[in-house]
Amino acid sequence: MIEPIKAYLDEQKDQHIEELMQFLRIPSISAVAEHQPDMLRCAEWTAQSLKQAGLEHIEIMPTGGHPVVYADWLHAPGKPTVLIYGHYDVQPAEPLELWETPPFDPIIRDGKLFGRGSTDDKGQLLLYVKTVEAFLRTQGSLPVNLKFCIEGEEEIASKHLPAFVEKYKDKLQADAITLSDTQMHGPGKPALMYGLRGLAGFEITVDGANSDLHSGLFGGAVQNPIHAISRLLSTFHDDKGQVAVKGFYDRVIELSDKEREAFKQVEPDENKVRADLQVDSLYGENGFSFYEQTTSRPTLEITSVTGGFQGEGIKPIIPNRATAKVACRLVAAQVPEEIMDAIETHIHAQSLPGVKVTMDRQLRGNPFITHIDEPVMVAAAEAYEDTYGVWPVYTRSGGSIPIVEVLGRVLDAPVVLLGFGLPGENLHAPNEHFHLMNWSKGTETISRFWLKLAAMSN
Amino acid sequence: MIEPIKAYLDEQKDQHIEELMQFLRIPSISAVAEHQPDMLRCAEWTAQSLKQAGLEHIEIMPTGGHPVVYADWLHAPGKPTVLIYGHYDVQPAEPLELWETPPFDPIIRDGKLFGRGSTDDKGQLLLYVKTVEAFLRTQGSLPVNLKFCIEGEEEIASKHLPAFVEKYKDKLQADAITLSDTQMHGPGKPALMYGLRGLAGFEITVDGANSDLHSGLFGGAVQNPIHAISRLLSTFHDDKGQVAVKGFYDRVIELSDKEREAFKQVEPDENKVRADLQVDSLYGENGFSFYEQTTSRPTLEITSVTGGFQGEGIKPIIPNRATAKVACRLVAAQVPEEIMDAIETHIHAQSLPGVKVTMDRQLRGNPFITHIDEPVMVAAAEAYEDTYGVWPVYTRSGGSIPIVEVLGRVLDAPVVLLGFGLPGENLHAPNEHFHLMNWSKGTETISRFWLKLAAMSN
Repeated sequence: MIEPIKAYLDEQKDQHIEELMQFLRIPSISAVAEHQPDMLRCAEWTAQSLKQAGLEHIEIMPTGGHPVVYADWLHAPGKPTVLIYGHYDVQPAEPLELWETPPFDPIIRDGKLFGRGSTDDKGQLLLYVKTVEAFLRTQGSLPVNLKFCIEGEEEIASKHLPAFVEKYKDKLQADAITLSDTQMHGPGKPALMYGLRGLAGFEITVDGANSDLHSGLFGGAVQNPIHAISRLLSTFHDDKGQVAVKGFYDRVIELSDKEREAFKQVEPDENKVRADLQVDSLYGENGFSFYEQTTSRPTLEITSVTGGFQGEGIKPIIPNRATAKVACRLVAAQVPEEIMDAIETHIHAQSLPGVKVTMDRQLRGNPFITHIDEPVMVAAAEAYEDTYGVWPVYTRSGGSIPIVEVLGRVLDAPVVLLGFGLPGENLHAPNEHFHLMNWSKGTETISRFWLKLAAMSN
Repeated sequence: MIEPIKAYLDEQKDQHIEELMQFLRIPSISAVAEHQPDMLRCAEWTAQSLKQAGLEHIEIMPTGGHPVVYADWLHAPGKPTVLIYGHYDVQPAEPLELWETPPFDPIIRDGKLFGRGSTDDKGQLLLYVKTVEAFLRTQGSLPVNLKFCIEGEEEIASKHLPAFVEKYKDKLQADAITLSDTQMHGPGKPALMYGLRGLAGFEITVDGANSDLHSGLFGGAVQNPIHAISRLLSTFHDDKGQVAVKGFYDRVIELSDKEREAFKQVEPDENKVRADLQVDSLYGENGFSFYEQTTSRPTLEITSVTGGFQGEGIKPIIPNRATAKVACRLVAAQVPEEIMDAIETHIHAQSLPGVKVTMDRQLRGNPFITHIDEPVMVAAAEAYEDTYGVWPVYTRSGGSIPIVEVLGRVLDAPVVLLGFGLPGENLHAPNEHFHLMNWSKGTETISRFWLKLAAMSN
């Protein structure tokens, strides 16, 4: 059944790429207020494209910010429903002088389509739209039920989407969620990213006397908030690089042997990392590789510390306050609020006479993980293998894309991140581009994925 | 022999205060370049005043900055030579709007002479000049040989005086050095300040990778310079508030029982200090009182710490650098360079993989102490007692006036700090003033002091 789909997509490829270039010409920069009209125009373009593909119930739905574009096709009774997430907004293009060709005037060079949004995410999103079109034009139907939820605020931290997903969770209900906003491991090397770290961010303030004090007249007789905060911060880790906060690791799902084995295909050469960073040695939790430490283990990083006179020279004072900011990266199944509870308990268990310590909780994002043996993950892996000729590698990211976890949790469905971008495609940077070899491979993989999901329900 | 001196000074008092007011009208602000002409005018006024008193060999001697005014009277063979140090420069007067009367338009209110420099140091300095005048007019001679060394840069850290003293150490040679630039313990309560703390100041830099790193992509696998510096800074003190650097206390001269007993007369109420600072508890080295901790024990205070993003909110990075600045207050007979050697050894003995730690030495000032049983100190105490009716208290300051130590060390003579100012006279602040009751008492104390020094050599 795949052949007529592929044939249609091959035949229409130039037309489809032309449409993608139209999409890229709209400077839908969500972060910049003056692009508000472009955002609306882009939402309308997206809706029109979905309609043209044959999708139904097209809606441009308001949020507190830029609208969401919704569409569906629900005529496959007994077959699973897949929600496709994507975004029509793009990053600002600055610094403009570093672009070889204008960011919103797309052009193909060396088999790559250059333009802001080409890989993040308009190019990857349109793969799904055109695959829909191919099925409906050649088969008259889709193998599964589909819903599209395309937001306009991904580049501004999906500010209004969590509330939108909560509000419309019945409408968005699905058996699986798919998105293509990540990368392959390399050319010809597909990757399934199955884990993202969560985030807990907070600020610690240590207050001493009611004003800065002369270090000559008071030095040695009052607690110095910098001494106290240094002592406190030094208790957060033990000598083996582990976080020394009681309960911190309690909910961490340990890596399976299968995962650790799989990481060997993707983990970077640690000597190269060390050389690139120009450090004498890497330093992290004993017993874990660099890749494991940065993707699959939780961390507590002090991201800033401040106390005393910040100008030139030594001003001999005992400051009345010192502060530190901390970002914890969390892994499944850690809960940001619980982690901050444990840290607050730890802080107040330290003996720091003569100062007051307070904690202000500021950031929360749950970690995300999909089990690699989940049937939809297996189906995705098989679709990749059938298309690229190799089984995908399994990757995890040390970063955080909180909306992925929100979608999976609120809709109670597994999330599959099928990346078709390549490393080095300059997302968020000048000269963003998309390798067009992954256009046809992308639509083929998606087609095979849907067919496999349909077959699973037989 | 004291009576005719006192009688002359009483008789001339109004005229002398009028001269002091002339002295105060010159805005000799050493820190402000536009007052350069005032500085020269003030040096000339000082020279003229010394000449009028009957002193000889008057010179306005150049330095790399504002000049030194020198004078002497050396006609007391077989008697000791006393070098009198003082300064003709003053602090800036800002904020001007807080002065009740203009800072350079001196006025007497409630027995106090208001004006910038009235207590620091023009008023206290002129006591010596007028005492010379009284002796020479009534006796035709002084009981001891005298030298005056009056600088114009005390308020800008005596920048050029150490080199001047080294260069002219033969010319300045004396058996004792006296200055009045400190305070009594309270009205009617004379004080001999016999110790000042020294200073060693340096900056510590901890360097990690060659750039800031994304805490998601690298967090947990590289050493965070803030973690390293927190750990390092936390090793500088033990749990009992002592400095935990090997050798730090090696040269500290322990307090005698006599000194500790004497402190009981001057030390502040610790509950009041605690309440004033609004802290739950004071915190310092176990086994020492607040006064001892702040005046007679060395300390290591971290005066600033900086690392990571210093703006609003949490920017989740691992910074590539963290820095701290440290000011150690030292007591006799600690040596700043030795102390910094010990700290540098301590720093490099810590295990901090993945970062480089460097130390930049910036400030050095020796501690100062005069033994309270030194014959010149006893003579000063007796002079105070004969004048005020009470034996002086012995005080030490936690602050640093490095030139005091330089004078004593280079000229190899004991330094006696005879304070005639009172606490609350607002030196360095608006509405600086000098209580005129200490004008007559001051000249009497100085007269008696010189007579006693002369008697000692019989």
